[in-house]
Amino acid sequence: MNFCSACGKSVSKKIPLGDNVARFVCDSCEAIHYHNPKIVAGCIPEWGHQILLCRRAIEPKIGLWTFPAGFMEIGESTEQAAMRETKEEAQADVEITALHAVLSLPYIGQVYMVFRGRMLTPGYEAGAESLEVRLFSLAEIPWDHIAFPVVREALKRYVDDSKTGRFQLHLASLSDRPPF
Amino acid sequence: MNFCSACGKSVSKKIPLGDNVARFVCDSCEAIHYHNPKIVAGCIPEWGHQILLCRRAIEPKIGLWTFPAGFMEIGESTEQAAMRETKEEAQADVEITALHAVLSLPYIGQVYMVFRGRMLTPGYEAGAESLEVRLFSLAEIPWDHIAFPVVREALKRYVDDSKTGRFQLHLASLSDRPPF
Repeated sequence: MNFCSACGKSVSKKIPLGDNVARFVCDSCEAIHYHNPKIVAGCIPEWGHQILLCRRAIEPKIGLWTFPAGFMEIGESTEQAAMRETKEEAQADVEITALHAVLSLPYIGQVYMVFRGRMLTPGYEAGAESLEVRLFSLAEIPWDHIAFPVVREALKRYVDDSKTGRFQLHLASLSDRPPF
Repeated sequence: MNFCSACGKSVSKKIPLGDNVARFVCDSCEAIHYHNPKIVAGCIPEWGHQILLCRRAIEPKIGLWTFPAGFMEIGESTEQAAMRETKEEAQADVEITALHAVLSLPYIGQVYMVFRGRMLTPGYEAGAESLEVRLFSLAEIPWDHIAFPVVREALKRYVDDSKTGRFQLHLASLSDRPPF
């Protein structure tokens, strides 16, 4: 951030009165500009014992696999965001059945909220941001071609839960520093 | 947003190529400025069968009660944010034991992530943003003096769970439009 989004003048990084974190503060109108973590809402779409993964058509990590996930928007709930991303990236309709994992990525200011979703129909297709979409049995997951460590972590925990048959909520923090 | 935070020139609201949501886009450098929901991390601190609530010393809703909660910061996990807010507002040290609720507030672009926290010591005290902090039995919760509907909702679900003795994760969306 170089300029105040309210008045267009210069900003400086300083700790506002009563705060303990440095923020961008306008040198002219004194507006304080907060920068907070973003939610990435994701869904592991399930069809019987298979899950639906997408091969990314966009950077970063073009050509690698992920479950549908993307930045939550204003005006929707976390579950709606996960359903929307599933529709956009995999053209699949799901019903959210549970929250699988909340994985914080402190170093890049993101929180992945990964849901499980039951596919309502067997239909799916590559959306604009996917090269290819397909169902995988858990034994077939392409571990060497997964787009991001956080996606691998969520899938690994999903597979572990599947083995025991006891799905639980996973809370964790990934310490990987960018870039990853 | 009136000005581009990257170059200081004017912005217009338009739908970027490949997107389907209107964003502020710089008329000069074409930077796209995304605006996403913020996470409010909260904690219901537990001491035996009592919970710790704070009476707000700041607007909005000064003088009304809430559990410790506030905006998550870059560089921390959701659990760390909840513990930090508990320390700042109630001077209490907790260990996070579970995620109690994820409550989306689509109309104001917030997601409350409310944890349960076990107080590690009986110590607590009003922090700078609290007028007063005290332990309440569940029968004593000041329902008529709770700061926000989302706080009331989280507490109500907590009390319901306590009655059955079965704590579960609550996923919900509150439809209240601002102001509330």
